[in-house]
Amino acid sequence: MRVGICGLGTVGSGLFNLFANNRSEIDRKTVISVELVQVGCRRDHPDCDLSSVNVTRDIFDVARNPEVDVLVELIGGTDTAKDLVLEAISHGKHIVTANKALIALHGNEVFAAADAKGVTVRYEASIAGGIPIVKAIREGLAGNQIEWVAGMINGTTNFILTEMSKEGSNRSFDDVLKEAQDLGYAEADPTFDVEGIDAAHKLTILASIAFGIPLNFEAMYTEGISRITSDDIQFAAELGYCIKHLGVAQRDGDDVELRVHPTLIAEDQMLAQVNGVMNAVMVGSDAAGATMYYGAGAGARPTASAVMADIIDAARETSVPNLGFNDWSEPNFLPISSISSSYYLRLAVEDKAGVMANVTTVLSNHEVSIEALIQKDARVRDAQIVILTNEVVESQMDAAISELESLENVTSSVSRIRVASF
Amino acid sequence: MRVGICGLGTVGSGLFNLFANNRSEIDRKTVISVELVQVGCRRDHPDCDLSSVNVTRDIFDVARNPEVDVLVELIGGTDTAKDLVLEAISHGKHIVTANKALIALHGNEVFAAADAKGVTVRYEASIAGGIPIVKAIREGLAGNQIEWVAGMINGTTNFILTEMSKEGSNRSFDDVLKEAQDLGYAEADPTFDVEGIDAAHKLTILASIAFGIPLNFEAMYTEGISRITSDDIQFAAELGYCIKHLGVAQRDGDDVELRVHPTLIAEDQMLAQVNGVMNAVMVGSDAAGATMYYGAGAGARPTASAVMADIIDAARETSVPNLGFNDWSEPNFLPISSISSSYYLRLAVEDKAGVMANVTTVLSNHEVSIEALIQKDARVRDAQIVILTNEVVESQMDAAISELESLENVTSSVSRIRVASF
Repeated sequence: MRVGICGLGTVGSGLFNLFANNRSEIDRKTVISVELVQVGCRRDHPDCDLSSVNVTRDIFDVARNPEVDVLVELIGGTDTAKDLVLEAISHGKHIVTANKALIALHGNEVFAAADAKGVTVRYEASIAGGIPIVKAIREGLAGNQIEWVAGMINGTTNFILTEMSKEGSNRSFDDVLKEAQDLGYAEADPTFDVEGIDAAHKLTILASIAFGIPLNFEAMYTEGISRITSDDIQFAAELGYCIKHLGVAQRDGDDVELRVHPTLIAEDQMLAQVNGVMNAVMVGSDAAGATMYYGAGAGARPTASAVMADIIDAARETSVPNLGFNDWSEPNFLPISSISSSYYLRLAVEDKAGVMANVTTVLSNHEVSIEALIQKDARVRDAQIVILTNEVVESQMDAAISELESLENVTSSVSRIRVASF
Repeated sequence: MRVGICGLGTVGSGLFNLFANNRSEIDRKTVISVELVQVGCRRDHPDCDLSSVNVTRDIFDVARNPEVDVLVELIGGTDTAKDLVLEAISHGKHIVTANKALIALHGNEVFAAADAKGVTVRYEASIAGGIPIVKAIREGLAGNQIEWVAGMINGTTNFILTEMSKEGSNRSFDDVLKEAQDLGYAEADPTFDVEGIDAAHKLTILASIAFGIPLNFEAMYTEGISRITSDDIQFAAELGYCIKHLGVAQRDGDDVELRVHPTLIAEDQMLAQVNGVMNAVMVGSDAAGATMYYGAGAGARPTASAVMADIIDAARETSVPNLGFNDWSEPNFLPISSISSSYYLRLAVEDKAGVMANVTTVLSNHEVSIEALIQKDARVRDAQIVILTNEVVESQMDAAISELESLENVTSSVSRIRVASF
């Protein structure tokens, strides 16, 4: 099976060298020999010896090359990548890609074109790098009805929250973000990661393969971590929780929730142990129960590992449907206002008699019960109240928060973080 | 694809009902329809409505039935199971089995017969129940050279050690074993689980698919947990470790270590968080780095989940080699005396001047350094010394322990527990 790589950046160079280093190990695992025959890249990579491979500066050469059976798309972005992939499919080539945005935003079109041509599109590397989570859900748990998926699938946000959570750290989001940028864990413009868009792309794909539903990025509720304060981290810790940036996809009959947001997780949960830039995905399914998959979510070699697994899969001629299902059910995507959750609330109040009674009365009027409450004495002017609530529908909480914010003695907006239910 | 199940015990009945419950979900995931056509069982199961399926009391009927494409072996044991599977293979049937002993002890013969007939043998359920670890190693990490596998793959031992480790528990092995038996987590004769044989069967298979080597149960060093005391648990905790029953397979060139034994694991490691009857396998590989897989290791439904995944895989006609590799390398299995490890040592000594000097001199003479040391005052007669050593070759440690035990003032044998190196 003849492979052409498009893009020789971080992942592309990692893949190129993995081909060289693990040549004999890969030969032992495939009946059909896997050969790297062409590389399409704008410039050579200093880590790669390209002397024995056909190099082209026009990546579309690879899409049209009759000597290539599988095109590996590692150029990133969505516009050119989509054109490239569709061109390769039209020439009957299988596709392997690490491009989550391409799949999340244009996957329905790409898979339809692939199905029409009878070729496969593989995308293990698009979610959680070195963790074979697509294979686990699409194949390893194929006998199950999958009920929910909860994933920490963005290393940047996990690194920042982990640093903010270190004992005695007391560091602000902005301070740690700068460190993450210095270490290369965050981009110069970090919006894509810290506002949750990258995680939302990945969760879009996870939800499709878990539930057998069309890719629908638009149905996702997306919230980042830039508003999390060191106070939030400390209050959560006092209550026995850590704060993680979690993607949650959940199915109940035809109803599907898709949401990415900061989440309180009880500190004795497995997901609460996942720190730094590491990723983990927990899958709740009807027969296997909860299983978890943990590993490096990014980086040249972990991502190349996933790309190579897809290439080997292609050589092994597995006939798994691209998104795991032959036909899709049409789900009812729930708006965030319809989900149920427990909530962490933080608000500042004037340090006066009767304020606590006002706050608790508002909650009680909206049928929100209090599971735990912390009040910190006013050191400067205002006191802080932190409340952990029972599980209520989000629209009910919206109404309660709105009324709390209108109280005369409440001096801040109400910070709200959802609590994990597993 | 027509399926026949042999054995309708815990797993068989779980699988039978999973077929019924997830019928439509499975149809959505397979192009070729999967039909359950025959059940071979000595007696009916109260949870299963067998009215619409062909039932036989002779399981060999299933192996010979021309209407069956895949035989699912769930009878357990090795003798009849092996005859059954070989008979089915001789009739050109694919095999799915949950039987770790069969694969670990007779796998080489079974796979050779299957290869000769051009059929597949799948065994996802034989290791770690609901966790798709065979698929992860054989396919998800196929682009990697796998360097080591470390697994907590026996729920009974993990449950017992977890209970013994609970804050202030101070419970003995025998006491917790009895509770495990009452809860159904341990057999009336618990030898198979608590002495590590079950874990050794599973690790034999893991090592084969990770390294591409023949199945060799005989090469395994196997040690159980029955000698672990509550003192060991407490001393380990004081040093920042928990004690887990771990299977370790490690490759270095042609050298392969296979060992199952109690192991100290630093308490901030992911594997240290795996408690109760849960299982987890961590895999160290050259590109993906360390990835971990966590879930329920036993039980009707998790095991049925794995069996069903294999059945669906068969219907999807994947062409993955049975053990992941087309050809095997011939490894050099290292005896336990050749491995390198840090060690936890515990010994009782007379409470006299100079004893500590004697002990440390013996270690020093054998070039064993001390990383940490605890001495507990004698309350009754003898003092306890606990030592954490640097990494040395086991034969060196054997010699040191032998000399320690010959010291006049050392009043106990030396308890030794290996320490995880990751």
